[in-house]
Amino acid sequence: MTVVVDVDTPGGRYPIHIGPGRLDSLDACIPADATSIVVVTNPVVGELYGARAVAALQRTGKRVLRIDLPDGEAHKDWQTLNLIFDGLLENRCDRRAVLVALGGGVIGDMTGFAAAVYMRGIRFVQVPTTVLAQVDSSVGGKTAVNHPLGKNMIGAFHQPIAVEIDTDVLRTLPAREISAGLAEVIKYGLILDPEFWQWCEAHAAALRALDRDALAHAIRRSCELKAQVVGKDERESGLRAILNLGHTFGHAIESGLGYGVWLHGEAVGCGMVQAAELSALVTGFPRADVDRVRKLVAAIGCPVTAPDLGAERWLSLMQVDKKAEGGEIKFVLMPRIGQAVSRTAPDDAVRDVLKRTVA
Amino acid sequence: MTVVVDVDTPGGRYPIHIGPGRLDSLDACIPADATSIVVVTNPVVGELYGARAVAALQRTGKRVLRIDLPDGEAHKDWQTLNLIFDGLLENRCDRRAVLVALGGGVIGDMTGFAAAVYMRGIRFVQVPTTVLAQVDSSVGGKTAVNHPLGKNMIGAFHQPIAVEIDTDVLRTLPAREISAGLAEVIKYGLILDPEFWQWCEAHAAALRALDRDALAHAIRRSCELKAQVVGKDERESGLRAILNLGHTFGHAIESGLGYGVWLHGEAVGCGMVQAAELSALVTGFPRADVDRVRKLVAAIGCPVTAPDLGAERWLSLMQVDKKAEGGEIKFVLMPRIGQAVSRTAPDDAVRDVLKRTVA
Repeated sequence: MTVVVDVDTPGGRYPIHIGPGRLDSLDACIPADATSIVVVTNPVVGELYGARAVAALQRTGKRVLRIDLPDGEAHKDWQTLNLIFDGLLENRCDRRAVLVALGGGVIGDMTGFAAAVYMRGIRFVQVPTTVLAQVDSSVGGKTAVNHPLGKNMIGAFHQPIAVEIDTDVLRTLPAREISAGLAEVIKYGLILDPEFWQWCEAHAAALRALDRDALAHAIRRSCELKAQVVGKDERESGLRAILNLGHTFGHAIESGLGYGVWLHGEAVGCGMVQAAELSALVTGFPRADVDRVRKLVAAIGCPVTAPDLGAERWLSLMQVDKKAEGGEIKFVLMPRIGQAVSRTAPDDAVRDVLKRTVA
Repeated sequence: MTVVVDVDTPGGRYPIHIGPGRLDSLDACIPADATSIVVVTNPVVGELYGARAVAALQRTGKRVLRIDLPDGEAHKDWQTLNLIFDGLLENRCDRRAVLVALGGGVIGDMTGFAAAVYMRGIRFVQVPTTVLAQVDSSVGGKTAVNHPLGKNMIGAFHQPIAVEIDTDVLRTLPAREISAGLAEVIKYGLILDPEFWQWCEAHAAALRALDRDALAHAIRRSCELKAQVVGKDERESGLRAILNLGHTFGHAIESGLGYGVWLHGEAVGCGMVQAAELSALVTGFPRADVDRVRKLVAAIGCPVTAPDLGAERWLSLMQVDKKAEGGEIKFVLMPRIGQAVSRTAPDDAVRDVLKRTVA
């Protein structure tokens, strides 16, 4: 059974299809005027699902190419992005070529950014193969690559023409990746939907065990909540910033340890615990709820203790984050479960949180 | 006296200010909420006008930085672009930083593209210092860098918040650059405005001699015509393509000889003669008007004979151009002076044109 969630933004309107076996009907989302189809993936996902995706796309009768990028966040850079441009130009792909991002968040972000800037913008389809990408990065049109001085610093808002979520592919995902993805799932409950948060607390074990019904519900509800936010604020001028809960701390962890040491979702999971601690100091978030956040983050299998980078380095790493404005660090904080606000916090409060959360 | 031409596109609405001395009032175009101002220029323009621009911008009371990029089309690449990102990140510039492109088309295209993708998009101002940039590249939001396999292959549509055209700065421009810029000026007449074309025929000598009134009229009319086209078709889905008259041949010249050997405007000037020849074969453009095109291109000081790249190489270079769709090469052709259409042409006709126009 396939569920459809519609996304409606100024930059584009498109469907998210969620269901088992979507991989085998990818041809349905390719527009008739496409001149060629270029699947961008990595060797790991390509080995597992590349042939099936290509076979489905070949039913369009169009030329289908495949470009494999090296795997991992460490390769989310301009050099790797250039492999896409090289492939497109060597094969003389024109403005009506359609890219298909088959993989996790790194593949989706890079393919989306390549589509945003190749010949000043071509169309692309997201086929996310991790929980994280399915509930977060594939929806909403944020694309980017990293810069040595900061994560996702170079990018664009570029909406896909469709998101195809095959829930079956999660079966081949390592447990650690499942846990990392679930961090973003519970995030939606924490910032937007107290009922969904409670549902997650009740179904943490089922989600980790890849219970089909639980996963399908979690992915659908996450996509719905994200689509609502993105529909109201495509370019992160206000509301959309709340989706960054846990990301200011999380980016510091990823950047401080070197990209790829912690998974993005793991860093966000830990960052949510830190944001909850900071909320207790700044917005009066109840202490009991800080404990619930720590407990659920642990229950889905994510770390709740942050790495020791040194307080000054922590502050410095958080300041270079995109959300820093005019020198002050902005955080997403919760007054209560199911509600979030974007605001600055005094350095002293942040130091206090670091003392409580760093190993 | 300052003239204002308004540009109105879905991606943004902004004024073009044209007049002598605009450089000294750049502070007026910086929004109040800007956190810092970053002037991007090259050593040649920077030496001449950098200090004046910075002094004017410092009157805002905001932090003003300057980044110098190496001069020339040969440096319009990712590595050079990265110098902007490095400077912005090292100085912790946030999303409210405003870039100011002070220079010719290369500086404008690169600064615009940097603004398009830095933190997924920040604001920028165009301060074009060549005829070419003043009448063409600074207006309309097309930004890009080159790829080893093709010119302007990586880019974005990103509108500036203002275009500030100081007509006095043209006095320090080399004669060859003046001629190259005038190619784009006469182009507007040829595709859109037969009266303006005749005016250009009558004022070719005055324009080359930098007659102040003639230049002011030519720049204003060119900006008006470009603003009209861009307002109707920001993203080059149809109408805007006619602005590429001479560019399919021109890109082949630039790319075939190596970027920077011919100036862009020189290549476009020669390409217009070639497009006129092709029009005579394909759309019935009168032979007498082909001669008028050749004569005016020569009169403004641009080459009218194309370099010998070999016919097959010519065709191959034109095919990789962005306007190539589904394998066929698209050209902008004229049925008559003041009118243009975008259409494909048979290879045989193109070969015939090459025989007539190549040295």
